[in-house]
Amino acid sequence: MEHIKAKIRTIPHFPKQGIMFRDITTLLQDAQGLKDVVKELKERYQDTEINAVAGIEARGFILAGVLAHELGTGCVLLRKKGKLPFKTESITYDLEYGQDTIEIHADAVKEGEKILLIDDLLATGGTALAAADLIKRLGGDIIECAFIVDLPEVGGKKKLEGKGYKVFNLVEFEGE
Amino acid sequence: MEHIKAKIRTIPHFPKQGIMFRDITTLLQDAQGLKDVVKELKERYQDTEINAVAGIEARGFILAGVLAHELGTGCVLLRKKGKLPFKTESITYDLEYGQDTIEIHADAVKEGEKILLIDDLLATGGTALAAADLIKRLGGDIIECAFIVDLPEVGGKKKLEGKGYKVFNLVEFEGE
Repeated sequence: MEHIKAKIRTIPHFPKQGIMFRDITTLLQDAQGLKDVVKELKERYQDTEINAVAGIEARGFILAGVLAHELGTGCVLLRKKGKLPFKTESITYDLEYGQDTIEIHADAVKEGEKILLIDDLLATGGTALAAADLIKRLGGDIIECAFIVDLPEVGGKKKLEGKGYKVFNLVEFEGE
Repeated sequence: MEHIKAKIRTIPHFPKQGIMFRDITTLLQDAQGLKDVVKELKERYQDTEINAVAGIEARGFILAGVLAHELGTGCVLLRKKGKLPFKTESITYDLEYGQDTIEIHADAVKEGEKILLIDDLLATGGTALAAADLIKRLGGDIIECAFIVDLPEVGGKKKLEGKGYKVFNLVEFEGE
């Protein structure tokens, strides 16, 4: 996946000192980069029974829409608190400093549906774990959690796998 | 476009009293609904020269990713303040109460590129106008501003057209 990794830009010290921010906008604004990402993810899941692709706000929406369309499924949204207008289920989880809340429409996933959860980048995994747990609470079955980028040093993959979720990513960055 | 309109849910009094919120999540989480939206937009633009599809955070990202992929272009992001890590251009615009700021990466659009701007819903048009103006500031040429829903009573289409931008939408809701 070096052809994909090479198009991701690293911005040192964003959003704060010491963080190497992996910026996927350079990958996605490149027509071939977008095509390559979609191709890899489509090939992985096209022979799997999937009822919906769920994307995590905000960058996860980019991939969720296109993957849902490629796989012929619907696209489900996991959003920050207060953004979804209908009846919601929510989970509040701890961040390094403070807490955050993620929500899903109560009718977004039905009992027994097979869901592919998608986001651009896996870091600590706090948001992805809350998202997966919310889908499970609605009766959904998480086929896999898929990301463009994993940051293995930060531990998100271990956290998700420790809770029984499968994880897939196209590229990874160590602290280079 | 009644088959598309019928899948959009109306939530009265969200986010506040008197607002009829047009909820596209029910359209997009329906596999056929998503397919129909993408088909209509793709058919409109597939014979037009377009270099990138630009989506407005957050729901605009869903459509921008899939349309960019279908049209074989890159996907450019317009984001809320502080979310983009690289050098940005920004515009601050007035809301009913207060102000908001939208940003774009300074290298997201190059001089002379033809850009399709996309979002889910056009209301007052404040955000869409700021987004279009930002793209223009970077030298981009806005082919059209496309939306699933227009709310004609709120005046966004007139505002955009008054500034010389073309507007297209699949469905519209009056205050029913």
